[in-house]
Amino acid sequence: MRTLEWNPKNNSLTMIDQRRLPEVLEIVSYRTHTDVAQAITDMVVRGAPAIGASAAFGLALAGFESAAQTPRDLFAAYQAAANILKAARPTAVNLAWAVDRILVSALASDLPHADDLRVFVLAQAQKLADEDVEINQRMAAYGAELISDGDTVIHHCNTGALAAVDWGTALGVIRTAWEQGKKIHVLVDETRPRLQGARLTAWELSQYGIPYEIISDNMSGYFMRTGQAQKVFFGADRVAANGDVANKIGTYMLSLAAHDNEIPAYSVVPTSTVDLSLAHGGLIPIEERDPAEVLDIRFQGERVTPLGAKARNPAFDITPNRLITGIVTENGVVYPPFEINLKKVVKQ
Amino acid sequence: MRTLEWNPKNNSLTMIDQRRLPEVLEIVSYRTHTDVAQAITDMVVRGAPAIGASAAFGLALAGFESAAQTPRDLFAAYQAAANILKAARPTAVNLAWAVDRILVSALASDLPHADDLRVFVLAQAQKLADEDVEINQRMAAYGAELISDGDTVIHHCNTGALAAVDWGTALGVIRTAWEQGKKIHVLVDETRPRLQGARLTAWELSQYGIPYEIISDNMSGYFMRTGQAQKVFFGADRVAANGDVANKIGTYMLSLAAHDNEIPAYSVVPTSTVDLSLAHGGLIPIEERDPAEVLDIRFQGERVTPLGAKARNPAFDITPNRLITGIVTENGVVYPPFEINLKKVVKQ
Repeated sequence: MRTLEWNPKNNSLTMIDQRRLPEVLEIVSYRTHTDVAQAITDMVVRGAPAIGASAAFGLALAGFESAAQTPRDLFAAYQAAANILKAARPTAVNLAWAVDRILVSALASDLPHADDLRVFVLAQAQKLADEDVEINQRMAAYGAELISDGDTVIHHCNTGALAAVDWGTALGVIRTAWEQGKKIHVLVDETRPRLQGARLTAWELSQYGIPYEIISDNMSGYFMRTGQAQKVFFGADRVAANGDVANKIGTYMLSLAAHDNEIPAYSVVPTSTVDLSLAHGGLIPIEERDPAEVLDIRFQGERVTPLGAKARNPAFDITPNRLITGIVTENGVVYPPFEINLKKVVKQ
Repeated sequence: MRTLEWNPKNNSLTMIDQRRLPEVLEIVSYRTHTDVAQAITDMVVRGAPAIGASAAFGLALAGFESAAQTPRDLFAAYQAAANILKAARPTAVNLAWAVDRILVSALASDLPHADDLRVFVLAQAQKLADEDVEINQRMAAYGAELISDGDTVIHHCNTGALAAVDWGTALGVIRTAWEQGKKIHVLVDETRPRLQGARLTAWELSQYGIPYEIISDNMSGYFMRTGQAQKVFFGADRVAANGDVANKIGTYMLSLAAHDNEIPAYSVVPTSTVDLSLAHGGLIPIEERDPAEVLDIRFQGERVTPLGAKARNPAFDITPNRLITGIVTENGVVYPPFEINLKKVVKQ
């Protein structure tokens, strides 16, 4: 199944609850755009492409929720829902990109009846989701050429099928290389604080039969310095016009270690993740989440942190373009100077 | 109380079980050198100075365990125990340093009766422990001069009173700066996989009333790049003659981030941690521990990693000397070139 799918039987959005894996594969279903927005905020669904697609379906839900009789009134309902959905998380640009794309096409459709518009918006969301899968596979084909037989690849966060509608970005590249018969090994950054690597990427890799070992994030430098890793792959939540990459917290330090050891570091993103409107990464908003995500882990069955302990929890960081070897998109691999070369692959 | 103390009532070594904090402050006591060696391996006691001192007392225990009637036979028992104690963990040189120091003084003592030698060895261990506290306070005084009023300091692992006999190394510096009235804030690297920062350093800081926030290890680069940290402090388990620093896994990536942001990074160590016999860090043995330490954490009450998941677990890494701003010792702060300047402060 896909990570998220529209259920036409009852007009609902069906998703894997990514908070429960690997322990439980639980399917949840949403019938309102506010519930979808909350699911994005709570990280029931996460991963830049996946939250874009779920927000697109969230917009479709808003149409079925609305009692509007005219396209004009219905469009107002879509706009209100769009604002709620876009506010669910700030960093990944795919969220706003997907919602705005649907809104623009709804406005341009100029359909005479509200029900036609409802059907049209749903079809647009479905098209966006289908395209996501196809784009992922094109990226994977380009990216797989960068992986050699015998490589050990370090991977950060989760960028697999769970992070997209299907297949994935950076993990999609690894999966395609594996299916091409390349013998590869993955060192899986556990990705504190939410452990997307240890929970989700490890689960996906075990499903695919790709050999892996989990490491804590602070170990990747050790494996690079001791010659035990050859490539670094991660996704992105937003790429600025100059190639600065906002991605899951820890990507900056991982890329620094790659650079220090002359190991290539690739960000794998659909062009919808590239935000040419922002000149550099410093302009990308960084979400800071609940400190409880850092504090509330358990160790050997016991509370880890002292009572009353405080924490900080920035969810992303900016990796400066000087540390990025290449950006893999569905239109090819982009190399520096990114300011010039990103524009060539992005349709805006 | 001290982290570890000799109990003269029943000739036992009494320690805080550091695996139980912050949940439970449990005191454990050992009467054999093999139990002390196991406690070091299992990290009941950890921290380079603390394992050195506990091994010294472990040697004293071996004397009381032995039925030897002559100094010669007793010395053989000490040698056998020394081998067991030194093998408990490979990376921190303080372990071998402490054991060898006691052995050498025992051999040189030339005492006529076995019981005199038993008392002498215990006195030597006690002297080493007392000196450790005094040395820590001298380091702290030198190091505190490097901290300015208003600084936010990033600290890795635990290097406080728990990591030594008392006071600590890098955390001792922070504590002294705080007691001098400097308003400081500590960002506490949680220090995966065993979470010495989240568990032990946070607990110590809350005891001392020093403000802190816990961060996951992969966040420190973010706080440096966004101007929210001014200094980095950590200890070391072994420093090579050229100033390469073996310390808790993650120190290399932390130091890289400090260097990339022109933030000073200091290693705080007693000179007993400096191993002039090793030319560079590549010669320092790195312990790799049980993968279960990485795999077996709990998140929101659920298992984190898939059944059958594998992991790697190097416990230390090497930070090259080019990333170290200064090494704080009890004989002053050493700056590059470390090859030349370390020799000046180390008595060997």
